[in-house]
Amino acid sequence: MQKLPVAILGATGAVGQRFIQLLLDHPWFEVAEVIGSERTAGRAYGEGARWVLDGEIPEFVRGMRVKGLHELFDSPLIFSALPKEAADPREMELAAAGHIVCTNAAVNRMIEDVPLLLPEVNADHVRLIDVQRATRGWKTGALVANSNCTAMPGVMALAPLRRFGIERVAIVSMQAVSGAGYPGVASLDILDNIVPYIGGEEDKVETETQRMLGTLVNDRIEWLPAVVGASCNRVPIVDGHMVNISLSLREQPSMDAIQEAWAGFVGPDPVPSLPSAPEKPVIYLQQPDRPQVRRDRATGRGMTTSVGRLREDPVLGYKFAALSHNTVRGAAGCSILNAELLAVKGYIADFQPEWTEHLEIDLA
Amino acid sequence: MQKLPVAILGATGAVGQRFIQLLLDHPWFEVAEVIGSERTAGRAYGEGARWVLDGEIPEFVRGMRVKGLHELFDSPLIFSALPKEAADPREMELAAAGHIVCTNAAVNRMIEDVPLLLPEVNADHVRLIDVQRATRGWKTGALVANSNCTAMPGVMALAPLRRFGIERVAIVSMQAVSGAGYPGVASLDILDNIVPYIGGEEDKVETETQRMLGTLVNDRIEWLPAVVGASCNRVPIVDGHMVNISLSLREQPSMDAIQEAWAGFVGPDPVPSLPSAPEKPVIYLQQPDRPQVRRDRATGRGMTTSVGRLREDPVLGYKFAALSHNTVRGAAGCSILNAELLAVKGYIADFQPEWTEHLEIDLA
Amino acid sequence: MQKLPVAILGATGAVGQRFIQLLLDHPWFEVAEVIGSERTAGRAYGEGARWVLDGEIPEFVRGMRVKGLHELFDSPLIFSALPKEAADPREMELAAAGHIVCTNAAVNRMIEDVPLLLPEVNADHVRLIDVQRATRGWKTGALVANSNCTAMPGVMALAPLRRFGIERVAIVSMQAVSGAGYPGVASLDILDNIVPYIGGEEDKVETETQRMLGTLVNDRIEWLPAVVGASCNRVPIVDGHMVNISLSLREQPSMDAIQEAWAGFVGPDPVPSLPSAPEKPVIYLQQPDRPQVRRDRATGRGMTTSVGRLREDPVLGYKFAALSHNTVRGAAGCSILNAELLAVKGYIADFQPEWTEHLEIDLA
Amino acid sequence: MQKLPVAILGATGAVGQRFIQLLLDHPWFEVAEVIGSERTAGRAYGEGARWVLDGEIPEFVRGMRVKGLHELFDSPLIFSALPKEAADPREMELAAAGHIVCTNAAVNRMIEDVPLLLPEVNADHVRLIDVQRATRGWKTGALVANSNCTAMPGVMALAPLRRFGIERVAIVSMQAVSGAGYPGVASLDILDNIVPYIGGEEDKVETETQRMLGTLVNDRIEWLPAVVGASCNRVPIVDGHMVNISLSLREQPSMDAIQEAWAGFVGPDPVPSLPSAPEKPVIYLQQPDRPQVRRDRATGRGMTTSVGRLREDPVLGYKFAALSHNTVRGAAGCSILNAELLAVKGYIADFQPEWTEHLEIDLA
Repeated sequence: MQKLPVAILGATGAVGQRFIQLLLDHPWFEVAEVIGSERTAGRAYGEGARWVLDGEIPEFVRGMRVKGLHELFDSPLIFSALPKEAADPREMELAAAGHIVCTNAAVNRMIEDVPLLLPEVNADHVRLIDVQRATRGWKTGALVANSNCTAMPGVMALAPLRRFGIERVAIVSMQAVSGAGYPGVASLDILDNIVPYIGGEEDKVETETQRMLGTLVNDRIEWLPAVVGASCNRVPIVDGHMVNISLSLREQPSMDAIQEAWAGFVGPDPVPSLPSAPEKPVIYLQQPDRPQVRRDRATGRGMTTSVGRLREDPVLGYKFAALSHNTVRGAAGCSILNAELLAVKGYIADFQPEWTEHLEIDLA
Repeated sequence: MQKLPVAILGATGAVGQRFIQLLLDHPWFEVAEVIGSERTAGRAYGEGARWVLDGEIPEFVRGMRVKGLHELFDSPLIFSALPKEAADPREMELAAAGHIVCTNAAVNRMIEDVPLLLPEVNADHVRLIDVQRATRGWKTGALVANSNCTAMPGVMALAPLRRFGIERVAIVSMQAVSGAGYPGVASLDILDNIVPYIGGEEDKVETETQRMLGTLVNDRIEWLPAVVGASCNRVPIVDGHMVNISLSLREQPSMDAIQEAWAGFVGPDPVPSLPSAPEKPVIYLQQPDRPQVRRDRATGRGMTTSVGRLREDPVLGYKFAALSHNTVRGAAGCSILNAELLAVKGYIADFQPEWTEHLEIDLA
Repeated sequence: MQKLPVAILGATGAVGQRFIQLLLDHPWFEVAEVIGSERTAGRAYGEGARWVLDGEIPEFVRGMRVKGLHELFDSPLIFSALPKEAADPREMELAAAGHIVCTNAAVNRMIEDVPLLLPEVNADHVRLIDVQRATRGWKTGALVANSNCTAMPGVMALAPLRRFGIERVAIVSMQAVSGAGYPGVASLDILDNIVPYIGGEEDKVETETQRMLGTLVNDRIEWLPAVVGASCNRVPIVDGHMVNISLSLREQPSMDAIQEAWAGFVGPDPVPSLPSAPEKPVIYLQQPDRPQVRRDRATGRGMTTSVGRLREDPVLGYKFAALSHNTVRGAAGCSILNAELLAVKGYIADFQPEWTEHLEIDLA
Repeated sequence: MQKLPVAILGATGAVGQRFIQLLLDHPWFEVAEVIGSERTAGRAYGEGARWVLDGEIPEFVRGMRVKGLHELFDSPLIFSALPKEAADPREMELAAAGHIVCTNAAVNRMIEDVPLLLPEVNADHVRLIDVQRATRGWKTGALVANSNCTAMPGVMALAPLRRFGIERVAIVSMQAVSGAGYPGVASLDILDNIVPYIGGEEDKVETETQRMLGTLVNDRIEWLPAVVGASCNRVPIVDGHMVNISLSLREQPSMDAIQEAWAGFVGPDPVPSLPSAPEKPVIYLQQPDRPQVRRDRATGRGMTTSVGRLREDPVLGYKFAALSHNTVRGAAGCSILNAELLAVKGYIADFQPEWTEHLEIDLA
């Protein structure tokens, strides 16, 4: 079976590498083009990229020629791990040129007609693509974003609680160094240290949370009408973003009702059947001292959000802890799941429906 | 000049060692007795104790014989670093026997007539000693507690804000491993990890904060009438407890007014003149990425609380970060400052007023 | 297909847990009995054991009743992760009672008729089992040891160099905290620290290296006639033991010849076909800065030794770095591979040869 | 009393900052000029430099204008923390222009007439300055180097053993991240990791060790005629370089004789009386598990080398561990001690002998 060729923008960076790693053996997609910076363009990937993930650089990509950002690309589907300076306006140009662009860049996340997708949470936001195409006169192209890696665990844990009326949310994050890319955080800044500041992060967490949990009404996203505050900290861990969340819920549900909401949460069809979807998007851990970053970040191949410590909060009513793998579910893995959703929803022109036959997906 | 002999209960543990280290060259106090567990009693301190602080074990204490917890002690002043099982009822017995006991144990902190002292914040709570003595029929003895090491940075940062009407406070802590003593946290539990749970800690932070910030009215402490919530996390750092605090203030002060409150905060006389008092109990750091644990924990010889990142919070109104050295200001250093306050207030019978002549303290 | 029931001694500890984890889905063996300490015996495994590995405790073992060390066991094959006080004499008793006991305990490693097995290196040492049985009058029982986790990477990297005449070997280790079990190393002893001492370790590395690389002559192991020295350090990493090795070789081979020796090393038949054998027992990494602990410890599912930085040493002639996963290849994983070797060699009475039919193993 | 104005090249980097910190309150020297890179030149130091040491940037330097590398400097004494590209040829030019230049740059360390000074070890090498001045026609200028921070602890520990005839030395290092400057090592490269490679480091350790331990004969340094090999590793610690050393000694001294050699080692007059000289340049720790990096790096205000674990080595005869603070004794602190030696030896024209009156230094 042939696969859909995909290109990776920013392929030599840490998130770009994670794309390459997660797409090894993907049932539908195949890395066909790797795009780097001016420094690496023209070289073999294995020479231009310093592989920073665990294990060795995958053999198939080692000799692949790195393309420059302004070359033409053949792949209909493009995953972007570009930093914001490079992302704007190149990602938009590529979408206009007919590519499906799934981006991690913050710069395009809050554009009104760009869906900010977390499939289990807001798969219906994909309909913004129709708006996008109509407004911009695009035929096959589209631009789809996934969220900030710190907003992500909160949104996943809050989504099943929307039914209880989320009013106010206070989020404090403890974030891994991999969230800052490579070289990113200097070791002198983080060994035996905490830095209570990550530039621009708190604003992203606050606004993206409201947008992702929002509702599609008349072709526009109405943000979740909740007050959200965030405080962000960098801590000396490799991977995994932990958040402590306090919140108030209008319906005043019981603790059991909240746990049941998490236990029953799977996301709308066909999301649970997508190749990269975890068996459970949210798992509630009963032990009093979980989730723990090192022990729980890999759950569901890094695609599951682990939640624990639900208890009363004297200030807002409820509190709990949530953890997600920031470079898998919070970045590359989410982009891939987004693309899978677009594929089965028919937004990728070259995608062959028969590729999904092995899955229980009803494309009707 | 002779000095006041002091005894240290739990002298072989991590906090006990910090007492010994901080009392080297103290102008008024001199370690005369070290008290250990059954295992170490009778042995030379240097043999019984595994020194876990930086540097080598101080020479003067190496050969000192460790006494058992149930022996008689000669020192009028006793610092206790006992774990709760050992502290209760031994600390109370020793106070009843005429000793001044300054304790770190949680077990005695919430007793109505035991002052929970942080001198810059609530020096007037020492008057509970008079209540204590009257009620219990004690003449020279007294029991004085200092707070949980995680409540401490919040209380210090909040004290200057009482004038603005503290209503609700949400605290999220990131705590060093030294807070759990030695051996304490297993390295397998904390390397590349965060544990979002510390048994009993959240309750202590919530209640002790209210009690320490409370008011002495008719010989009783009226707790601060604020709602306080806490979430506690263990992180892979050696020393220093960081808290992220969100709060609402009735008076809605400007950010400048809050910074001025911190800048002007020194605590009531004679606290600023005590030997262990830092020049500034609270320092506000203007850089956007401070306080940082490793870089700021030693400020003011570990006795200063570093505060930073004051900004608006969409949920409660204000937020900031605060940091204190947990085994210095949050434990042994605070006990010593408490004892200094008791000394100049005349509560320690054997204390010689002429020892304070070099300080600008008016004992009148 | 039925599987061989196995028992795990010391099942609640860190290495015991690794056994349980590695035996999930093993093609031949199935955990049927878990044996714990006095404290845990009689309880459900999920209650008695504090799971310290990444992820959650496997479901199948959660409710299994923990047996006491002195009960009777049904499983013909026993893996032991006992500490030495518990291992002696219980392991020997169980072997005498007819069980095949594969042990990690140091206490039995240097007994003359106990093979110290690393299958790729010294599979022929299994013949000591015949000696063992003959001498001790055992019929079905046997006691087989695997090596110290720090000796292991050196032995694996040195084995292919035996042909060049190993004369002198200097080993300096940098060892993960998981090597000390749980709770093991206190976090206060290792965060931002190195401890240049691990009790008894250097002697084990020196003697076990010589014994494992030795030759079976007339039913006895003649130790490798080389001089071996070791210096052992504990460093703040979770898993993975790194060694820096300098050595002199009688034949003075070229650097290329040494790399070829590693590249061609697979171990004697049928070892490469065993279920837990890695594709390559030794991999030489060409990058100048590899192997790295975090990035290379999981190679070959933790069963491969990664080697790098081969270069001239002014003192002994050659030097290089080697890395193995200490709780997989250096402990539980090696024991399992040892047991697989015993199975196909016919030493386990109840083992069914047809279980191996899917492998290319010639049991003739 | 007036002080000698000094300039710091590379003042905004990590070692430059250490110079500023260590020169606070120096009895003879006073920071008068701070020199930065093109990026920082012309700005206030507090704006151009990102302070990476613990604590806040010292007040006196915050507003000082950063000079460019090619401006003229007024200070007779210059400390250089320049990287090698910037150091060559600027340091040599400044010496030629009449400045005393004390450099940390590797690029000038092996020049025949440049002393590579570690005062307790080879104070007599200062006489190369006379050679330097005679050869090059300099009157007041001079260029003096201090060693690589990893060679340093070995050299200090080996110096007292020269009397026993050092023949072969094998050094394995475990080095802190601060040795790589700022930003230096990426946190993704070192958290939960070891990197067994530091570019160029092993060669420096090997050759500088021989040169520093060499003998001044006929105005030239005859290198120590010993074979020295080094293997260098980066480990996740903040400050402090640990080495494991094995060596052979011609005289085969007893272990006691070696410990006595260390205990009695103070360096030649007037080194022990210099302001920055530690009370003991080498301390032997009797505990079996010392020196430890975090606990012992600050001994002697970071200027003492801590040694421990002296024992037999099967391969070379003797082995031990040694630890020094890499950015204090291994860099800035050593440069300052070197300058103090030059001052009292009369090499700094503007230095006033009466400044030394408070010390017991005989300048005759």
